[in-house]
Amino acid sequence: MSIRVAIVGPTGYTGLFLIRLLLRHPVAKLTYLASHRQELPNIVQEFPRLLGCVPDEVATCRPIDAQAIAREADVAFLALPHRVAMAYAPRLLDAGLRVIDLSADYRLDDAALYEATYGQPHTDTANLPKAVYGLPELFRDDIAGAKLVANPGCYPTTAALAVSPLLKHGLVVPQRIVINAASGASGAGRSLSPHMHFAELNQSFSPYGQIGGHRHQPEIEQTLSVIADQDVQTLFVPHLLPVDRGILETIYMEPCDPEIAEDDLFDALEEAYDGEPFVRVRNDLPNIKSVVDTNFCDITVRLVRNRNACHVVAFSALDNMIKGASGQAIQNMNILFGQDEAAGLF
Amino acid sequence: MSIRVAIVGPTGYTGLFLIRLLLRHPVAKLTYLASHRQELPNIVQEFPRLLGCVPDEVATCRPIDAQAIAREADVAFLALPHRVAMAYAPRLLDAGLRVIDLSADYRLDDAALYEATYGQPHTDTANLPKAVYGLPELFRDDIAGAKLVANPGCYPTTAALAVSPLLKHGLVVPQRIVINAASGASGAGRSLSPHMHFAELNQSFSPYGQIGGHRHQPEIEQTLSVIADQDVQTLFVPHLLPVDRGILETIYMEPCDPEIAEDDLFDALEEAYDGEPFVRVRNDLPNIKSVVDTNFCDITVRLVRNRNACHVVAFSALDNMIKGASGQAIQNMNILFGQDEAAGLF
Amino acid sequence: MSIRVAIVGPTGYTGLFLIRLLLRHPVAKLTYLASHRQELPNIVQEFPRLLGCVPDEVATCRPIDAQAIAREADVAFLALPHRVAMAYAPRLLDAGLRVIDLSADYRLDDAALYEATYGQPHTDTANLPKAVYGLPELFRDDIAGAKLVANPGCYPTTAALAVSPLLKHGLVVPQRIVINAASGASGAGRSLSPHMHFAELNQSFSPYGQIGGHRHQPEIEQTLSVIADQDVQTLFVPHLLPVDRGILETIYMEPCDPEIAEDDLFDALEEAYDGEPFVRVRNDLPNIKSVVDTNFCDITVRLVRNRNACHVVAFSALDNMIKGASGQAIQNMNILFGQDEAAGLF
Amino acid sequence: MSIRVAIVGPTGYTGLFLIRLLLRHPVAKLTYLASHRQELPNIVQEFPRLLGCVPDEVATCRPIDAQAIAREADVAFLALPHRVAMAYAPRLLDAGLRVIDLSADYRLDDAALYEATYGQPHTDTANLPKAVYGLPELFRDDIAGAKLVANPGCYPTTAALAVSPLLKHGLVVPQRIVINAASGASGAGRSLSPHMHFAELNQSFSPYGQIGGHRHQPEIEQTLSVIADQDVQTLFVPHLLPVDRGILETIYMEPCDPEIAEDDLFDALEEAYDGEPFVRVRNDLPNIKSVVDTNFCDITVRLVRNRNACHVVAFSALDNMIKGASGQAIQNMNILFGQDEAAGLF
Repeated sequence: MSIRVAIVGPTGYTGLFLIRLLLRHPVAKLTYLASHRQELPNIVQEFPRLLGCVPDEVATCRPIDAQAIAREADVAFLALPHRVAMAYAPRLLDAGLRVIDLSADYRLDDAALYEATYGQPHTDTANLPKAVYGLPELFRDDIAGAKLVANPGCYPTTAALAVSPLLKHGLVVPQRIVINAASGASGAGRSLSPHMHFAELNQSFSPYGQIGGHRHQPEIEQTLSVIADQDVQTLFVPHLLPVDRGILETIYMEPCDPEIAEDDLFDALEEAYDGEPFVRVRNDLPNIKSVVDTNFCDITVRLVRNRNACHVVAFSALDNMIKGASGQAIQNMNILFGQDEAAGLF
Repeated sequence: MSIRVAIVGPTGYTGLFLIRLLLRHPVAKLTYLASHRQELPNIVQEFPRLLGCVPDEVATCRPIDAQAIAREADVAFLALPHRVAMAYAPRLLDAGLRVIDLSADYRLDDAALYEATYGQPHTDTANLPKAVYGLPELFRDDIAGAKLVANPGCYPTTAALAVSPLLKHGLVVPQRIVINAASGASGAGRSLSPHMHFAELNQSFSPYGQIGGHRHQPEIEQTLSVIADQDVQTLFVPHLLPVDRGILETIYMEPCDPEIAEDDLFDALEEAYDGEPFVRVRNDLPNIKSVVDTNFCDITVRLVRNRNACHVVAFSALDNMIKGASGQAIQNMNILFGQDEAAGLF
Repeated sequence: MSIRVAIVGPTGYTGLFLIRLLLRHPVAKLTYLASHRQELPNIVQEFPRLLGCVPDEVATCRPIDAQAIAREADVAFLALPHRVAMAYAPRLLDAGLRVIDLSADYRLDDAALYEATYGQPHTDTANLPKAVYGLPELFRDDIAGAKLVANPGCYPTTAALAVSPLLKHGLVVPQRIVINAASGASGAGRSLSPHMHFAELNQSFSPYGQIGGHRHQPEIEQTLSVIADQDVQTLFVPHLLPVDRGILETIYMEPCDPEIAEDDLFDALEEAYDGEPFVRVRNDLPNIKSVVDTNFCDITVRLVRNRNACHVVAFSALDNMIKGASGQAIQNMNILFGQDEAAGLF
Repeated sequence: MSIRVAIVGPTGYTGLFLIRLLLRHPVAKLTYLASHRQELPNIVQEFPRLLGCVPDEVATCRPIDAQAIAREADVAFLALPHRVAMAYAPRLLDAGLRVIDLSADYRLDDAALYEATYGQPHTDTANLPKAVYGLPELFRDDIAGAKLVANPGCYPTTAALAVSPLLKHGLVVPQRIVINAASGASGAGRSLSPHMHFAELNQSFSPYGQIGGHRHQPEIEQTLSVIADQDVQTLFVPHLLPVDRGILETIYMEPCDPEIAEDDLFDALEEAYDGEPFVRVRNDLPNIKSVVDTNFCDITVRLVRNRNACHVVAFSALDNMIKGASGQAIQNMNILFGQDEAAGLF
């Protein structure tokens, strides 16, 4: 068996990491690169590290012709910008391809929330209800038969994996979850901007954006509300780290029961992820260094009492390019095609 | 007028930065380096960057002889480890020197709390009540006449400057202040350890220590409780950044009045720091890059509403070696000796 | 077919990377970790990133018992310090294992040169002549049947791959080859030292050691002299980069014929590496960023004329932990066991 | 006495560092910022770290009106791009200002060489012969009375200080000097480009540009040829370091006399820089970490023999923004106005 893979919009970092991961996949094979750029890029010129890794006939991108792609591929990864992905997904689906979309276009169930969050109307409301949110550890059963997978955001994956088990067991208060997040620079993509200029970002550290207004906050709340089966409210505050890759979230919560023990928290996490290949419930504190270059999400939790205050603090770390994007997309592909879910991901 | 300066225990990073700052001070002059090491170190061999900056007769440390120091200096900076500083302070004070202690030994008013926090009894309870906590923006009037100044910790300075005005005006709830902190590596000093090994710390990011058990938490609570005139409870969670210098704290609070406006928060900050040379109330978000190599503390605040939740988030940044240690010590020296408080600090 | 693999001395960085690479190897399987430490280490406690990657029964190191290892493994990688490796290699060979030594102990053919370079006599002169220098691109035919492979040094691999084709074709003068090298911190291993302390190495750059006295210089000269079939003299000057991984060498040579064209230089490189999976002759300039996390060595060359002077400058880059150590060791293993040479290395 | 200072074109990094250095200068005072941009920038908005450091009436740039500047300033620093500087210098000189130009426009004596190097004709050949090359340690006597100072390039300063004494004493062969240079990112300025994008430059290291074609090579050769009083030929090969600031040059030379001793080399350096405040002849190897944030240039030299080859290797390091640009400009200003040459530079 082999899986023939197309990547649509491969010139961003998620495209690069899809290609890198596919190089070591036992059965998947990159057969098609498609671009919506006028001047069709060559992936090796875009990414010098790919010299010698991609056959010449694949390296030069071709136009996004759904029929042509469907002849040469079984699955299409959309690594396009938000808003562009939903312009191409319908044709690719119609041509019979399985589609795994790494943009945000199919992540929010509610088209109105999408519009409020991304600033323009959703243009593919026909497929939106059919899309499955591709976070395997929480929604594995839904993914297997899906035609269209919405690959989760990097920050939402980090948060959802840490908080879901605690909410599911009713251990923490759902109305006041504070997510302090820090991400490496690759999360911002390849677009040039003064904030990403080396001499500015190097040896820096700062929050960014409109505090409380990050686009991933609604996505996080949607997932957690499904899991908690009630409205979950978060405050999500992102910071930019002077590193290439990696996300660490420090998540502050209030226990429902002040008499709770730390072991109860660990029990919830361990039960949730027993047997999961890619979520590690740790005793020690997570470090992005231990997850970069892996598809792991590392989680731990602490119960902290200080006089009459009591806090639950969860820590969650992953590689934003792997478990937070391209690795999780490969994991979803493995599920779609009945492969070992971990194939090619170690 | 000139101020003759001794540094006791100059071979750590706070010593290095004291020396660097003194090089550009208009009236202070380094006259004496004293060490408690058996083999007396030469400061230029310790820090190659000081070659050509310290006269030979000063560069080689001398023993800690209080009388000898008092003959050649007006003030002694103690840059010794915690617990060692209080062994030498009494003699230096007795010899007539003004003492500015950069260790934690005289920061906590309560000897019992000191023992609980630092794991051994306080050995200079005679001088402890006379020590003044040297955070000029909050306690300037007390500092001027002091013989012994306890130079604040780096994390506590960052937190206290951001939160004090909000507590003073009763704008935030004092019982549930969460301080998410991140610091560069110099805060951990020069001691070798696997966590500070370059190949481990580089491109890493993680929380550290016992969560809720950092020694600076009681110091923060002491200061804020004085300011608020009631018991303040915090949760302090430190993280280690892969940078040399800089602290950023993201501080989550609950407003007392849910109808509060963001402007009320800014008003409190601006009133508090109007005319202060070293605290900048910013509109944009602080970045450690903008304060490293300066004695500034940069602060801003945001009010965030999300459905029925309301959060106050303050951000505070400084250079842990300057405003968080040696720069603030120089600022205290300037006050002690009636100089322009900003002398040598730009 | 499967290859059962033991690693002897796995607690250094070369051990870590061997394990990481084996995780994705299609036929090799880690079966045995052996340590010469008194207190037997657990590899997951040594390297938190390996949690969930190594079976418990393998993770705790066992003593170095050659017979026991030989029962469970086909090949032993020695990831021991120099001088220790040659104490264990004989027993492992006698027990019937193939041995791939990542230390320097079997790299220099001449025991006297070894003693001069490493400061103590060679203690296994019986096996020394049987060892094959495991640089596949230059000595592939010798490796296939070897029992004992001396895995080359990181700097020597980088230099030899760039310079060998030029010497072989008589294009550059062999007596005055200047190798300006820069390496990331992992090359210095896990041992703590002030120079590797984060706050010292971060944002630094400097040469190190006794200039002209680096232990890799004789190894480079040995390889190049074999290739050139005459005495080759180099000056090797290493620098330490504030990065985790990667080596870049900038190599200054004099052309034998001042009328030479740059194309002649490229022809020599391209002929040498035509069809090689892991050497990329580039037109653009190499960057460690493009080779880190790969088994590639990237090479290019420039001919520079300035008035009546003429210089040949070669640039060569690789990942010191992969092609410069553990990746090359896996490549050698693949050759030894008749596998696709690139298996597990993409 | 006070020196009133204007900066023309202050929105680049050299402008930022001029301002930072002026903040601590005892007698110089920033009075005027002038910009050639259509929309006049505010320097505090350009550089958030300057908040509170520049009076409002100065912070907003004014147009480049030579007469107006001359009314408020004694000296104008030109921090403009190459080719733009020479468009404004004549008017500023005519208005009676002393001019210190940090661009390359007045560094090369020969207008034809300027055109060959910078790709367009020199447009101020009237002032070109009057410009003095502002490298105080080599040409101090010429600077004192100058109206127009050409502030040297960062790489040329690093090279000239290390090599000049050796050439002056006839110790090294002038025809084959190889300068291997590495610089931090600030040297490339604030302009955005893919190579300076954080996620690309971080943890990278590579040579750059056309090898042998860097614009600083002719400037280096001009200075060294003046010193050696004969034609000096160099090969200059720059590399880009993943750090903010700092240059290290490793310079390979051939001794004129193979019997030379290393002490002879040190004697030449020490004699040249005896009493110089900003050149440190070190015994240990220079590190950019020891010179960043200082106006020092650190130099050492090694004599290396390997069988019948003999090499002289000099190492030279400085902060490209300080001694390599703005610090040296302040040093020149101090000379022009009869101040202590080191004023404001510690």
